[in-house]
Amino acid sequence: MTEPAQTRLRVRYAETDQMGVVYYANYFIWCEIGRVEYLRSLGYDYKQMEMIDDCHLPVVEATCRYRAPARYDDEVVIETRVTALRSPVIKFGYRLVRAVDNQLLAEAETVHVCVDRQMNKKPLPEKYQQAIRATME
Amino acid sequence: MTEPAQTRLRVRYAETDQMGVVYYANYFIWCEIGRVEYLRSLGYDYKQMEMIDDCHLPVVEATCRYRAPARYDDEVVIETRVTALRSPVIKFGYRLVRAVDNQLLAEAETVHVCVDRQMNKKPLPEKYQQAIRATME
Amino acid sequence: MTEPAQTRLRVRYAETDQMGVVYYANYFIWCEIGRVEYLRSLGYDYKQMEMIDDCHLPVVEATCRYRAPARYDDEVVIETRVTALRSPVIKFGYRLVRAVDNQLLAEAETVHVCVDRQMNKKPLPEKYQQAIRATME
Amino acid sequence: MTEPAQTRLRVRYAETDQMGVVYYANYFIWCEIGRVEYLRSLGYDYKQMEMIDDCHLPVVEATCRYRAPARYDDEVVIETRVTALRSPVIKFGYRLVRAVDNQLLAEAETVHVCVDRQMNKKPLPEKYQQAIRATME
Repeated sequence: MTEPAQTRLRVRYAETDQMGVVYYANYFIWCEIGRVEYLRSLGYDYKQMEMIDDCHLPVVEATCRYRAPARYDDEVVIETRVTALRSPVIKFGYRLVRAVDNQLLAEAETVHVCVDRQMNKKPLPEKYQQAIRATME
Repeated sequence: MTEPAQTRLRVRYAETDQMGVVYYANYFIWCEIGRVEYLRSLGYDYKQMEMIDDCHLPVVEATCRYRAPARYDDEVVIETRVTALRSPVIKFGYRLVRAVDNQLLAEAETVHVCVDRQMNKKPLPEKYQQAIRATME
Repeated sequence: MTEPAQTRLRVRYAETDQMGVVYYANYFIWCEIGRVEYLRSLGYDYKQMEMIDDCHLPVVEATCRYRAPARYDDEVVIETRVTALRSPVIKFGYRLVRAVDNQLLAEAETVHVCVDRQMNKKPLPEKYQQAIRATME
Repeated sequence: MTEPAQTRLRVRYAETDQMGVVYYANYFIWCEIGRVEYLRSLGYDYKQMEMIDDCHLPVVEATCRYRAPARYDDEVVIETRVTALRSPVIKFGYRLVRAVDNQLLAEAETVHVCVDRQMNKKPLPEKYQQAIRATME
């Protein structure tokens, strides 16, 4: 399998809660950033995918296991892979790691189904399937 | 002037930050709830306004003055008025008050302009103008 | 098993995304509201639990299966149960249902571990365990 | 006056709403990022400021004027200056610009007061005042 796509972000103050750590729902926002940057690493653009190909990828299932708390101003590395592709279903896996010490923060998966703007299932266009499969070998 | 529309909400854990109080941007989300409930108090529905009348009210200016911190689980009362209406421009004023002791938490204003789905300005339909003016007298 | 705790909320405009439906991470914020209202239905208050008992319940795992999209202004019913309790671990299950037609929107689980403010594990105090077990019979 | 601090971000899907543009409250989150990066450009770290100097900068007033909608995946440049400093009060000004075409998206101001963790006002430590004043000349 090729290397996962990597992207980085810095924890925002807005993302913390009164426990002093990142609120748990925000990790799913970070996964979305990971997905988008994964696609960009293939030369694709989720914005174009929606606008030009009328392909949208709503989430049908999402799971996160939290290993260590992320804190304000931490730099976080998001590693994103596609772990399964059976069009119109696509499954992403994520590892979220603190940059400074490589501490694993969380592992996540999301399952998506390709739909058009009326929310009807449609196959993921072949160009995306090919590019994605190339990262899965 | 008639009484402002009132609505209540309870502070979510997600809305706090590591200072132990509500993150400042979230007050603007509460103002949005105040606007929607103001319209509902007139017998209108912002969802219908968007879908049936193709009237959207993007914000062109927003201000909030923070008086006392809101905290997790506080019950907050939002009082909403229209303070100016010169179609297509409409201005809302808000008072956010802690329910338990009537402590003023924040005062806010938002200015909106009525647009269609292509973001072109359009007059606010007469039925809304009439209902709103009745609350301003 | 006794009835699950029920609470209601209305979908905020801020919670939608450009697909016209609720952004997937926000369901986890709703689950948090469900947990808090579950505790309140037992006569307890998560705020007090944190401040007086120094018990915090960070999430160690969270899963959501999305069944139908929630939309702006929908009224959503959150049904919350405790599905497993082996102190210091507690597991919640949620059903999110659209009020108007009882459409299932999502099912979710979250697993928590009881910790003190230094994030050290500690048993869930007996009073909470008893009250929770009573709802599980 | 020296150049404002600049930082860049990419609009997240989570930040859009069903109007297809960025939800208005999110611009205030971006301003927070601008403030933090402004401090970092002076060699300071807001995290350290809170933890070591016990200086927190809650917002007492915030205003944003929206000039053009930001959209999903736009790259946004945030320019941040301090526009007034009379310890313990500090005022920031922001220009948010779309990177690709330099379109002004929004202008904002926030006013802060320096407090300790008990929310009592305190002077902004001299080292910060000096570094900030150097950017205002």
